[in-house]
Amino acid sequence: MKKFINRIDDLLVESLSGFAAAHRDLVTLHLDPNYLTRAQKPNNKVALISGGGSGHEPLHTGFIGYGMLDAACPGHVFTSPTPDQMLEAAQAVENGKGVLFIVKNYAGDIMNFEMAAEMLPFENATVVTSDDVAVENSTYTTGRRGVAGTVIVEKCVGSLAETGADLAACKALGDKVNSRTASMGVALTSCTVPAAGRPTFDLDNHELEMGVGIHGEPGRRREPMRTADEIVADLVDAILDDLKPPQDSEVLLMVNGFTGTPLMELYVLYNSAARLLQERGLHITRSLVGDYTTSLEMAGASITVCLLDDEIRQHWDSPVHTAALRWGK
Amino acid sequence: MKKFINRIDDLLVESLSGFAAAHRDLVTLHLDPNYLTRAQKPNNKVALISGGGSGHEPLHTGFIGYGMLDAACPGHVFTSPTPDQMLEAAQAVENGKGVLFIVKNYAGDIMNFEMAAEMLPFENATVVTSDDVAVENSTYTTGRRGVAGTVIVEKCVGSLAETGADLAACKALGDKVNSRTASMGVALTSCTVPAAGRPTFDLDNHELEMGVGIHGEPGRRREPMRTADEIVADLVDAILDDLKPPQDSEVLLMVNGFTGTPLMELYVLYNSAARLLQERGLHITRSLVGDYTTSLEMAGASITVCLLDDEIRQHWDSPVHTAALRWGK
Repeated sequence: MKKFINRIDDLLVESLSGFAAAHRDLVTLHLDPNYLTRAQKPNNKVALISGGGSGHEPLHTGFIGYGMLDAACPGHVFTSPTPDQMLEAAQAVENGKGVLFIVKNYAGDIMNFEMAAEMLPFENATVVTSDDVAVENSTYTTGRRGVAGTVIVEKCVGSLAETGADLAACKALGDKVNSRTASMGVALTSCTVPAAGRPTFDLDNHELEMGVGIHGEPGRRREPMRTADEIVADLVDAILDDLKPPQDSEVLLMVNGFTGTPLMELYVLYNSAARLLQERGLHITRSLVGDYTTSLEMAGASITVCLLDDEIRQHWDSPVHTAALRWGK
Repeated sequence: MKKFINRIDDLLVESLSGFAAAHRDLVTLHLDPNYLTRAQKPNNKVALISGGGSGHEPLHTGFIGYGMLDAACPGHVFTSPTPDQMLEAAQAVENGKGVLFIVKNYAGDIMNFEMAAEMLPFENATVVTSDDVAVENSTYTTGRRGVAGTVIVEKCVGSLAETGADLAACKALGDKVNSRTASMGVALTSCTVPAAGRPTFDLDNHELEMGVGIHGEPGRRREPMRTADEIVADLVDAILDDLKPPQDSEVLLMVNGFTGTPLMELYVLYNSAARLLQERGLHITRSLVGDYTTSLEMAGASITVCLLDDEIRQHWDSPVHTAALRWGK
């Protein structure tokens, strides 16, 4: 294991400290318990809080700021944050309109966010993301996993919250975006959790894991390496089998890298996926390509399709100012 | 070698096609010879053109757009573009105020851009970037290599060009930014050029290459793996030995990933470098952390320090709208 770390026990706080220093115009870091908030507390909006295990950066810390999250609660690598983190974060950012948690569907995250929600002295609701169509249940999950589509949910709900919309409306939009979003990923290499010191799983030089989870959970099948077009065809088929988009639907196409795959290859995947979607009668009007929901140093990528409508497109396009997504402001 | 490709011969065009499709609001792809231009041709500005071997994305294609480049000429992986690419690109984007080439200092790039410049029917000049302090001459280079600091040069000159400044002023600012910018990188793994099919160099599980080039060229020394703080101390020492910044200087600190290093670790490097710069009496007022000048799938990173002044800071802050850098617009 070769990583840029000092002591494994210090990795998380050192990384968060670097993040907060580099983006001190945007975020403020609070330690013990660990959470990050916007540098300037906004008024008269639902407070959006997300979180989860670290190792998926820029998710979620990179999405704190105008038009997206109010706070994020990072757990240790691939480990759920604890309820005290969510409670303190909520105390810090709630401003009279309640708290909406956005939680990826992993058993530990669900349990700890639920505990925080029960103790919270504010009106609150939770959107659970579950966009990964690869498997119905998984190593750490009952039901479908939440993966890169979470970024689209956070962007759209974040936009609506800035308008002063109430908690019920924000929760409803989050659930709607999640229901119209489907993803699937593929790994070419494993990743190594620093505290474990060895790869999470083994893949040989001629294999891929189709449908991998963002912690290296098993997918649908282990199979021989194939061409980009063949791999993308399977991902797109699985996504469209789930979404069943009507002919002529307008979609957002996201190609998300897990870290170790060069941007040059992500655009090969985009090229292939875009052609297939067009052949299926879909219109790609919005795109996002890059590393947004990562798996430590894993080589691999996921494809996400979101069925747009006027409401979702408008919230996707609205201004956002975070470390990892920024436009229109 | 496991990569998301179809045929090796199609990799570049498929990747460029995906890039152009995903960002069709920003760029237009021209094939045979290959170059990309802004989707809308601007008026009354010096035309900025960069280029170089592919495999360093988002450099340079990701920096085409308002406030940065007018065109980019991508060669094959780690291979210089040819003069016909630069000539056609210049014909497409020149709009009466001449052409400025921004070229990283590699022998092949220098030769081919010079050939293009000699044939060009427009007033033209060239800024050669040479920010890598690791070694004086290298595998493909006479003099210092141009690496991630090129992004800062392209951003600042791009900003000045938008104001209608003339060719001499743009060239002078580019040279000035380059002279005030220093970088050094470290590799934890090699990368594999697709056409070669095997790693460019060998590093074992306990070694790093200090001062590596962005094509895997040898650096200062091969050495045992150490802590992040120890590695960063060597990088920062080398950079500051070169820059010799006066006490209380204001600087931009960039931590650039080569691809395979997780963002979480890049922020550990930032945290460490920021502390060292502050201890040396420098004030970090601008930051950039992420994968901006990559080396295919290499794990590793570089640190860049740019000595700011009012002029450079203003051009860094000005609006930019490209696929890989976007703010203020």
